[in-house]
Amino acid sequence: MIQIINQPENVVEDMLSVLPDIYPKLKYKKETGIVYRTNLTKDCVPLLSGGGSGHEPAHFGYVGQGMLSCAVEGPIFVPPSAEHILEGIKTVYNAKTGLLVIIKNFEEDVTNFGSAIRQAREMGMNVEYVISHDDISIESSSFTRRQRGVAGTVLMHKILGAAAQAKVDLDSLVYMGNQISECIATLGVASRAATLPGKTEPMFELDDHDISYGIGIHGEEGYRTIGFESSEKLAVELVNKLNLKFHWHTHDPYIVLVNNLGGCTREEELIFTHDILQLLDLEGLNIIDVKIGTFMTSLNMAGLSVTLFKLHDPSWLAYYQAPTDAFAW
Amino acid sequence: MIQIINQPENVVEDMLSVLPDIYPKLKYKKETGIVYRTNLTKDCVPLLSGGGSGHEPAHFGYVGQGMLSCAVEGPIFVPPSAEHILEGIKTVYNAKTGLLVIIKNFEEDVTNFGSAIRQAREMGMNVEYVISHDDISIESSSFTRRQRGVAGTVLMHKILGAAAQAKVDLDSLVYMGNQISECIATLGVASRAATLPGKTEPMFELDDHDISYGIGIHGEEGYRTIGFESSEKLAVELVNKLNLKFHWHTHDPYIVLVNNLGGCTREEELIFTHDILQLLDLEGLNIIDVKIGTFMTSLNMAGLSVTLFKLHDPSWLAYYQAPTDAFAW
Repeated sequence: MIQIINQPENVVEDMLSVLPDIYPKLKYKKETGIVYRTNLTKDCVPLLSGGGSGHEPAHFGYVGQGMLSCAVEGPIFVPPSAEHILEGIKTVYNAKTGLLVIIKNFEEDVTNFGSAIRQAREMGMNVEYVISHDDISIESSSFTRRQRGVAGTVLMHKILGAAAQAKVDLDSLVYMGNQISECIATLGVASRAATLPGKTEPMFELDDHDISYGIGIHGEEGYRTIGFESSEKLAVELVNKLNLKFHWHTHDPYIVLVNNLGGCTREEELIFTHDILQLLDLEGLNIIDVKIGTFMTSLNMAGLSVTLFKLHDPSWLAYYQAPTDAFAW
Repeated sequence: MIQIINQPENVVEDMLSVLPDIYPKLKYKKETGIVYRTNLTKDCVPLLSGGGSGHEPAHFGYVGQGMLSCAVEGPIFVPPSAEHILEGIKTVYNAKTGLLVIIKNFEEDVTNFGSAIRQAREMGMNVEYVISHDDISIESSSFTRRQRGVAGTVLMHKILGAAAQAKVDLDSLVYMGNQISECIATLGVASRAATLPGKTEPMFELDDHDISYGIGIHGEEGYRTIGFESSEKLAVELVNKLNLKFHWHTHDPYIVLVNNLGGCTREEELIFTHDILQLLDLEGLNIIDVKIGTFMTSLNMAGLSVTLFKLHDPSWLAYYQAPTDAFAW
């Protein structure tokens, strides 16, 4: 199918360079992938995140007061270079407070972000990091958890961003970030893989009636492919798997995030959410809030993911609910 | 391709009945398609709109303070019955101010909404209406403008909703609505038609490399199908056609709305917007604001539309910018 783009090799640059025209609070450093804001608050820890492109509106959509200060975007599904990440750090660094980096748990991301952080520290900057690893999909060969950072990462941006805005200091943000990341779990399904810009075939093959459980956001196939029956059946599989992670009890407080991976319709989002919420209601969980929309995509992948966030510490709720002007929240 | 739904015949009911769980300010009257809010302001004219389903987040996504008071949703691509529309009118009617209905210009919509309005008037209610007809696509047979109500309708919801919230009276809203609707024009393109729930084939056929200009939002084919070259070329065609409607002059003030018809990626939205804005900049227009996102879809149609709104009356801008809690704005 046609992609409404120009030169495939310019997709990221074409996309990022229009951002300041649409969202005047965002700045973009040409040809660096660095999207940032200038209205930083003096005594607040700046937050930086990022990763490969292709996950729009992540991460630049979360740059705004009360969320990120800077997003560093790489090529499609490829993390940004350590050089660009370091430049991003310098762009929004606050010598008074230090700076926090949120990294999605993918090997290459951890390598590049880690290298930039080391360099920044060597230059005397106070830079800490937390890693999001919410994906509970398993390796189909070894049955180990993949623990990739996926849609739940956005909840870390929100909570930590609001806490930073409320002048929580760097060490406390790291502590809170590590706590939060243990309380977030995500599982996704897809009926069509992402197609790279300029390509015509999806990144992995799926029969017309099949659905893949536990897909990744860079074209990684899931742990199991079966014939699709209904949204309800999908919801049952995902909720059961999420409970294997949480072992929840009646009345436990949770936030639900249903994420469109890029190619599903608004109708599918709502119907699937309906099925998820009915199951969680049967389980007797205390659902504090439901977020639904397009938060962390995989280009045009037709699929949805469910993230559950256990509100282990009641103080997190105020951060979750705090206002932000990030356009994609 | 799979649709993540349950029984195709229950799509609308499944979708609408979850809304109050996700958006607690919205109420839904089971099996009527009526989505409304209860936090109505005493001295404000309530606004009602609606139409067939399949255009999500239209129309329920625009129910909120400062936009609509009520949306009445029909089956997929079929307008709601006059009976349900009348019940919607009664649900949010304000005897002190009267009520305004915004109708998308499709024959069946005008018939059903018109019939409900007549019945409401016979019952002594003061109900007025305005019609949105922003589509500038042409009938390929007769070369006459189709003037369907499409994505630009959402701008009418916004401006008139904010004006109503500011206590503008019913007659003035009708006058303003008719003025506004003359200043809004939309043109859309698609590379894949919508697929109805439970069906496997799109509603009209397009070759893999073709794009259809001037498509409708109910599966109507466009006025011309040609091979896709680039986002830039598409943008040129659309901007030229929009200028045939407006005959703009340098420095004319416009608002731009780029609408994802359901199946495009965030990357395509941004790249296409980039190309549109570059052309409008060359034309010397004064672009006051750019809205980009999923506002009025046609199920999973892969396509985009551009709406231009000429700010003929500078007082409209404050209404455009006024806050609303409608979730899809």
